[in-house]
Amino acid sequence: MKTFPECIPCFVRQSIQAAKFAGASEQRQKEIADKIEEYLKNINMQDTPPKTSRNMHIEIRKLLNNEDPYKIVKDKYNTIALSMYDKLKNIVKKSKDKLLTSLRIAIAGNVIDFGAQIEFELEQDIKEVLTKDFAIFDYEKLKEKLKKEKEILYLGDNTGETVFDRIFIEELKKIYNSKIIYAVKESPIINDATKEDAVFAGLDKLTDIVSTGCNSPGIVLEYCNREFLELFNKSNLIISKGQGNFETLEQEKRPVFFLFKIKCNVVAQYLGVPKESIVLYNKF
Amino acid sequence: MKTFPECIPCFVRQSIQAAKFAGASEQRQKEIADKIEEYLKNINMQDTPPKTSRNMHIEIRKLLNNEDPYKIVKDKYNTIALSMYDKLKNIVKKSKDKLLTSLRIAIAGNVIDFGAQIEFELEQDIKEVLTKDFAIFDYEKLKEKLKKEKEILYLGDNTGETVFDRIFIEELKKIYNSKIIYAVKESPIINDATKEDAVFAGLDKLTDIVSTGCNSPGIVLEYCNREFLELFNKSNLIISKGQGNFETLEQEKRPVFFLFKIKCNVVAQYLGVPKESIVLYNKF
Repeated sequence: MKTFPECIPCFVRQSIQAAKFAGASEQRQKEIADKIEEYLKNINMQDTPPKTSRNMHIEIRKLLNNEDPYKIVKDKYNTIALSMYDKLKNIVKKSKDKLLTSLRIAIAGNVIDFGAQIEFELEQDIKEVLTKDFAIFDYEKLKEKLKKEKEILYLGDNTGETVFDRIFIEELKKIYNSKIIYAVKESPIINDATKEDAVFAGLDKLTDIVSTGCNSPGIVLEYCNREFLELFNKSNLIISKGQGNFETLEQEKRPVFFLFKIKCNVVAQYLGVPKESIVLYNKF
Repeated sequence: MKTFPECIPCFVRQSIQAAKFAGASEQRQKEIADKIEEYLKNINMQDTPPKTSRNMHIEIRKLLNNEDPYKIVKDKYNTIALSMYDKLKNIVKKSKDKLLTSLRIAIAGNVIDFGAQIEFELEQDIKEVLTKDFAIFDYEKLKEKLKKEKEILYLGDNTGETVFDRIFIEELKKIYNSKIIYAVKESPIINDATKEDAVFAGLDKLTDIVSTGCNSPGIVLEYCNREFLELFNKSNLIISKGQGNFETLEQEKRPVFFLFKIKCNVVAQYLGVPKESIVLYNKF
């Protein structure tokens, strides 16, 4: 998906947010925004928003002289998410359709996102996602695939969300005996999960953890390493978490099931469904 | 209230929105944003956000060569709002506390705002505002004032919202026999109501309509005319609609009751209440 004019203020917002999380003063936050606005003049609007965001965050980190401005909030939400594990497991245990409930929980974890959303109320959002109708719901298609394809490439998204993914992955393994390869970012970008976060969530005991080789929100294939690209191109079932991965991969003719909450008007309009919708979307 | 760094992306968003409403192409929208970002480098962060917004919109209109980019959407929401009049009156008629219900309806009309919000769903928001708890609720204080003060300066906000104000004003007149002076913007700014919009809503039959003399969102006193300033300074009861008026007037030591929905994190944090809260706030 290309960049739309409405993405520009969102980029500016991210620059101020990163500066704020890094402890910059209000004056310094404004200075960073001024410099990033200068940077945004020369971006290519045909690039996907995550590609631009990745390169902008490299600039922001240089300006802030801070390699991981989101470190503190990532640690915080890792801990909060892990503390919710037992409660979430219990919700699955009590439910009729355990696969669907765990899949809903995986989406609920997708609210932990500083890239697209400023604030979120986790408990409230979980409740909502557990009962809300899907705007796009390729669930039967996914179940058919799960019966046939035993190996799944699972594209992770945010730190903390990893714990919620674990709940879904545990059901996938239990019901379909799936083998999961869990892909994370090579190094910090916004609050995206890296290997460290996947291990923190206990995913190393359930899955193979691989790096995409790139440090973009979403998965910008041109920045990924060869190993990941080979894996991506040969996988017969890919589950992709989060809006960023959708923005970068929706045009790829691969068997990807996108699982996310729609966090902005640009993507809502692109898919023709309301903002805040939840979707399980398979195009090809 | 001063401008916070988080206001910057909101200003950029407004520039793109104005360009979009004026029918500019995506490329042109991006160009306008680039130029406005240049403009935003030199703003005074000690100014209120509406003051900056007012001057920025003068720039935007020059760039767009369009004196009223919001004209089409204003006309649309004037018509929509007026078509809801009978239904809203009926809600008041059926309610126990007619003053409170009509006051809630006046707040509900405040969701019609392109300055702070991109999208709104009017029917849904009305339902919510009719039952939601107030985060700040100086209602008893307002009622006491209404008993004593028969002349009210009512500071209008947005186009369409004027119809919702009419419902509240009709109850004020019926219950307290109040005389209302309804203040509107001198000329178009974003979707703020001008005299034409107040007349469209039928307010000329119920109130004196006066101009603030200025064309800013909110009421920037330094841009108002002498007549309005005299009126503002001598009024013993002022009802102020909308977040913009709060941002520009909250420091003034005048008997103002601010009635609005909190539409952004900056104001939410400033008042120490959640975003999306509804408030009836009197400081002095």
